[in-house]
Amino acid sequence: MTSDLEQLFGFLRFPSISTDSRHSADVRACARWLVRTAEDFGFEASLHDTPGHPVVLARNVHREGRLNVLIYGHYDVQPVDPLDLWESAPFEPEIRDGRIWARGCADNKGQMLAHLIGAGKTLRESGDLPVNLTFLFEGEEEIGSPNLAPFLRDHREELACDVIAVSDTGMVAPGVPTMDYGLRGIACCEVILRGPERDLHSGLFGGAVANPATAVGRLIASLHDADGRIQVEGFYDDVRELEAWEREMWAKVPGVSDGDFLKVTGSPSLFGEKGFSPAEQTWARPTAEVNGVGGGYQGEGSKTVIPAEAMVKLSFRLVPDQDPKDIMAKVKGHLEAHCPAGVTVEVVPGHDGKPYLTDPNSRFGKAAQEALRNAFSAEPVMIRGGGSIPIVQDFREILGADTLLLGLALSDAQIHSPNENFPVENFEAGIRLNRALLEALSKTRDV
Amino acid sequence: MTSDLEQLFGFLRFPSISTDSRHSADVRACARWLVRTAEDFGFEASLHDTPGHPVVLARNVHREGRLNVLIYGHYDVQPVDPLDLWESAPFEPEIRDGRIWARGCADNKGQMLAHLIGAGKTLRESGDLPVNLTFLFEGEEEIGSPNLAPFLRDHREELACDVIAVSDTGMVAPGVPTMDYGLRGIACCEVILRGPERDLHSGLFGGAVANPATAVGRLIASLHDADGRIQVEGFYDDVRELEAWEREMWAKVPGVSDGDFLKVTGSPSLFGEKGFSPAEQTWARPTAEVNGVGGGYQGEGSKTVIPAEAMVKLSFRLVPDQDPKDIMAKVKGHLEAHCPAGVTVEVVPGHDGKPYLTDPNSRFGKAAQEALRNAFSAEPVMIRGGGSIPIVQDFREILGADTLLLGLALSDAQIHSPNENFPVENFEAGIRLNRALLEALSKTRDV
Repeated sequence: MTSDLEQLFGFLRFPSISTDSRHSADVRACARWLVRTAEDFGFEASLHDTPGHPVVLARNVHREGRLNVLIYGHYDVQPVDPLDLWESAPFEPEIRDGRIWARGCADNKGQMLAHLIGAGKTLRESGDLPVNLTFLFEGEEEIGSPNLAPFLRDHREELACDVIAVSDTGMVAPGVPTMDYGLRGIACCEVILRGPERDLHSGLFGGAVANPATAVGRLIASLHDADGRIQVEGFYDDVRELEAWEREMWAKVPGVSDGDFLKVTGSPSLFGEKGFSPAEQTWARPTAEVNGVGGGYQGEGSKTVIPAEAMVKLSFRLVPDQDPKDIMAKVKGHLEAHCPAGVTVEVVPGHDGKPYLTDPNSRFGKAAQEALRNAFSAEPVMIRGGGSIPIVQDFREILGADTLLLGLALSDAQIHSPNENFPVENFEAGIRLNRALLEALSKTRDV
Repeated sequence: MTSDLEQLFGFLRFPSISTDSRHSADVRACARWLVRTAEDFGFEASLHDTPGHPVVLARNVHREGRLNVLIYGHYDVQPVDPLDLWESAPFEPEIRDGRIWARGCADNKGQMLAHLIGAGKTLRESGDLPVNLTFLFEGEEEIGSPNLAPFLRDHREELACDVIAVSDTGMVAPGVPTMDYGLRGIACCEVILRGPERDLHSGLFGGAVANPATAVGRLIASLHDADGRIQVEGFYDDVRELEAWEREMWAKVPGVSDGDFLKVTGSPSLFGEKGFSPAEQTWARPTAEVNGVGGGYQGEGSKTVIPAEAMVKLSFRLVPDQDPKDIMAKVKGHLEAHCPAGVTVEVVPGHDGKPYLTDPNSRFGKAAQEALRNAFSAEPVMIRGGGSIPIVQDFREILGADTLLLGLALSDAQIHSPNENFPVENFEAGIRLNRALLEALSKTRDV
């Protein structure tokens, strides 16, 4: 195993699950490891406490007259349940079939560490970088980055930059370098329905009181029509329609056909808004998803209760020009208006982030395309991403810089799922990409 | 504490949860305790293995020319979760405010043991009973008595009887002796909806595939209209309408007003089929209830997944003349026909039992009314029960005898819920009731 891979394995062994308070110490230990690793490469690195998990900064010696580049990544990871579906332990990385298998290998530790190693090697070999580089690594991306925007505001001068690069997205197909010029936003909430003051015997009381587990089904069903169109009033008001050139460009992108989506998801059939391809549905159309639902008895056998309460966790993926606060207000209004008789509803808003859209052919965009072409020896494609990296909007608003999204994960990376994986060759390409990117970006200064 | 209560506490300490295979040894130990206890009173007792949990029989010496009476009870109990809502440990009985608090104290250990103690005391004091008595105690009532009907068939001659008595129902109000002349039946199933072959990232794939947790909501919502009427085709076809004399009699029953139901359930409002009182809704109208629903992430924080599957546990309470097999076939057809696009549905039928109806004024019914009057020094009321004791139908079909349902639990007994309780005075009244009942029944022989 190469020393680069050994370094990645060390990084992956930290169970840095940001959403679970039992793992707070692991998240912090992971941040400390990053500081030491950056320092070993010759960067000046520092750990910054926040009200949540720490931010890590690392930088080369900055000199006047050079382009200022910020590279962002996150070292926190998603939870791992259901644990029994993992073929190898999530925090004991393994290589099988040319891929690394571990929680966080693709999202985002493998991608972010490739940049750190790429720049670190350039620094070791050349004694300098072609740009003024700052790494910004956070530990709260998977919980919506609640403390990053305040951190950006507090460190606005230190983090001032011309352009930002992030590798936290995907490639449309193996070997096809991919740039995302847009992302969906997100708005989350948890909804609790309450009925009787305790679980009731469904024989003694069934028929005379409302059942919160029935009510949660009715509330979920109110979100869509039978064709999957969202029924929240005004939900589509601010949705920007796809441009003709985007639909034309995306129609040629490999790896996103109906057959590809069927294969990657393993769903019995595709299902989505009529009149849009799967790529259009996931990159440029909004959604309402149930991420979790629960109520009553879920164990072995049966228990004939009317549960006292039931809950549903919802998330909405948003597209330009939808606003998460506006959408959550509309959703809350919808849920309250559609709350079935006989139960009460409580809507607890969660994290959110705005959708993002930028010009793929700006001078930085063109430099990124060149770097992708060089690192992969193939023509890059330009798409939008279906996921949400809300902080790119914060970067634009607080730091005034656009973000280049240069993804390295494959569509079957199984991020957020059991058996997350990342090809060894993509990790190595990421290291090459960083070196090509800093070189290409440094030349935009002269344009 | 009286020795009767000490005996009950010993009985309650067995965690005889029949639905949970981890408690099989506890169920068996509880059955052995019953055999010893019956033998100590002078009964001939025996433990009978079944493919599931054991049946216990106990009898006095039977003599020709006397009425044959069978008394049934069950020594298994419901699960105890959510455990954190119990004010005292479910299997460490306590007396507070004149009530016994423990899982199973009302359903059914307290009620059945009152009969065993009542008859046992008569036997000890008089050396005989006025009838030929057989106790039949089973350990699988809470899982639908899968092995009882075969047992009845195999022991048909040994269990031959003129009438059966069961105390496993409720009293409409404290001090008001209550006889149930009908019960609802039941049909249960578990429904599993499957979509993608694993949990998916809701950003990358949301919008292009169906979400099983959304689909389970839509399927649940298909069961009722907004007024709570069940939408399964043909569901009401065989429902026998209430007789005028029943509605008139029930309108005078204490403890079942709207206010009583609101107080006992703690629901924000009542909700049920229009045109029926809560008593009518729960005693004489069928239901479709969600006993449990689950899918996706239910832990702390958020996890933006599209779950691979979701499930719902359903039970249907049935009234004369609905047939559980017919209803389950209709339900399965409905669920398959209403399965949302993009997911597959599997319906796994569970336990079932027929509804029951008998004449409250038969000669045995009148004897039971007299016994209730004597034991409680109050006029009894005649109702139907909302719960299900499917085996009373088996008693009728296999043993050819009707069942007297003489309930001792109060409506706030919290059976199947945390903090199950049973008044000490009802336990003592149950002992008196047994003695009055055997006396009154013995006289029907001469009528």
